[in-house]
Amino acid sequence: MNFFEDKLMLEKYDIQLRYGENPHEKAYVFGRPQFELLHEGKQLSFNNILDAEAAWSLTRNLEVVGGGCAVVKHQTPCGVSYLRDGDTIADKTRCVASALSADGESSYGGILATSFEMTLDIARSLKTFLEVIVAPAFEDEAVEYLSKKKVRLIRPLNYTSYVGKIAFDSLIISERRFDGHPELLFGEPFDLKEVTFALIVAEATRSNAIVIVKDGVTVGIGGGQPSRKRSAWIATTLAGRNAEGAIAASDAFFPFTDGLDILIKAGVKCVVAPLGSIRDENVLTFAKENGITFYSSPIRVFRH
Amino acid sequence: MNFFEDKLMLEKYDIQLRYGENPHEKAYVFGRPQFELLHEGKQLSFNNILDAEAAWSLTRNLEVVGGGCAVVKHQTPCGVSYLRDGDTIADKTRCVASALSADGESSYGGILATSFEMTLDIARSLKTFLEVIVAPAFEDEAVEYLSKKKVRLIRPLNYTSYVGKIAFDSLIISERRFDGHPELLFGEPFDLKEVTFALIVAEATRSNAIVIVKDGVTVGIGGGQPSRKRSAWIATTLAGRNAEGAIAASDAFFPFTDGLDILIKAGVKCVVAPLGSIRDENVLTFAKENGITFYSSPIRVFRH
Repeated sequence: MNFFEDKLMLEKYDIQLRYGENPHEKAYVFGRPQFELLHEGKQLSFNNILDAEAAWSLTRNLEVVGGGCAVVKHQTPCGVSYLRDGDTIADKTRCVASALSADGESSYGGILATSFEMTLDIARSLKTFLEVIVAPAFEDEAVEYLSKKKVRLIRPLNYTSYVGKIAFDSLIISERRFDGHPELLFGEPFDLKEVTFALIVAEATRSNAIVIVKDGVTVGIGGGQPSRKRSAWIATTLAGRNAEGAIAASDAFFPFTDGLDILIKAGVKCVVAPLGSIRDENVLTFAKENGITFYSSPIRVFRH
Repeated sequence: MNFFEDKLMLEKYDIQLRYGENPHEKAYVFGRPQFELLHEGKQLSFNNILDAEAAWSLTRNLEVVGGGCAVVKHQTPCGVSYLRDGDTIADKTRCVASALSADGESSYGGILATSFEMTLDIARSLKTFLEVIVAPAFEDEAVEYLSKKKVRLIRPLNYTSYVGKIAFDSLIISERRFDGHPELLFGEPFDLKEVTFALIVAEATRSNAIVIVKDGVTVGIGGGQPSRKRSAWIATTLAGRNAEGAIAASDAFFPFTDGLDILIKAGVKCVVAPLGSIRDENVLTFAKENGITFYSSPIRVFRH
């Protein structure tokens, strides 16, 4: 007997998806997805919805630092930016441009989510092809303008975030709660908003996650790896010279000094990570000796 | 109103998980997970179940090439090997050792799944600390021996694989079906079993996925990246000289020649990938000109 077929089919919601995770696989939706589809330039797919959820969950957390926007590909962020300047349309347009150009190569065909209204001005500024745009509100003129394109426009409704997956014919669910308020452990203080921003992006990046941030934008995202050291290598390689003087966030503690060493050698000057390793003292001494600033996160922020 | 709280709570299954994806998050299980927990050296966690499902789904697909085993960390494979020699215990022990040493650094604290019975001999050969061992059968002596350790032992029951996640307060499900029988397009034929093996591992690796295989074992796994080119860079860097003469699988078509170029420059001599790009002709001509063998996969094998 199959749990999903037996028990859940009753709750199947009548939404047509193009196909499942791949064209030869069927998709099913249980429960009414809490969003309004303002435009469907091309039929919504399984991957579109999950990408949109990934982008929107991250963007919602950005409210903690005053809002921002995220570009997601394959359910993983490739460019994220927060509103550093203010709330004029020019600031917001700049924020979107920063997120899209943070990893310009990957942004093509991406999913953009913003924490602010999608205005006609912002819509007109979008030069990259996007699969989906997610925003809490859309100007009528923006919908009209974007409706000429193949994009899907999603306006999420209010709902509580959960993460969960199917395993062994059952559904395994976890709360998704970001309560990460970093505290300065030692070193010269950095902009706390930017430190928190780095941690928020790490929360949305597949573990092991290392995220490097500079001037309000991600410059190197390493994730989805079986070792933290490897994510540090990916993030610093992508960041290149932008790692110099930057802030790096880790989604969990450093089990050894090796991952931290890669960040420091690349020029990172501030690290935020939870503690809890049996080698914490080692790791913290190493950070201190290398003259970097260390913020501790009260929570681990794994996402898979 | 929350779909999960309203509708599904009725089906909540009384299994105690240590905590959710992170210690500050609660976990819930809906439906009875289809496995027997033969030993729980440490309380089962949310991440354990999802890791076990990832390892087991991959291992089940390995039946297509005669069985094998997989080591998973953070829901992504880090070492996979198939049974090339035969079915003696020595062959199986060697297969497990190959998978564990394929990425020895990452295997520590991993989840091991085998397609064959866990015997006392195999159990005794395990020198790496493992969080979970998944097998279709366990010798009584193996359970007794392993029960002295902190490991969890899982024997899956029969069930149909689905993938799916929670998004926008609903559950989005897809079938998970591997029907990938690669066909030779051009070039000198390679061992079809090994070509299929590479594709099976790519199916279990987060998209974009590039998997390099040599002599029955993975030597470089690149995945969880927003660009295929980047996964090719990760896989070839990890493979190093082992990429020479090796087979590489891609979970989707190459949109440009750049990713393929990285593989060829590293020494890969055979590639398996689905087609479907508007630049297929370009990509295939490039492969031909570089003298590599190309197998086409009838299906795309994204997993996220």
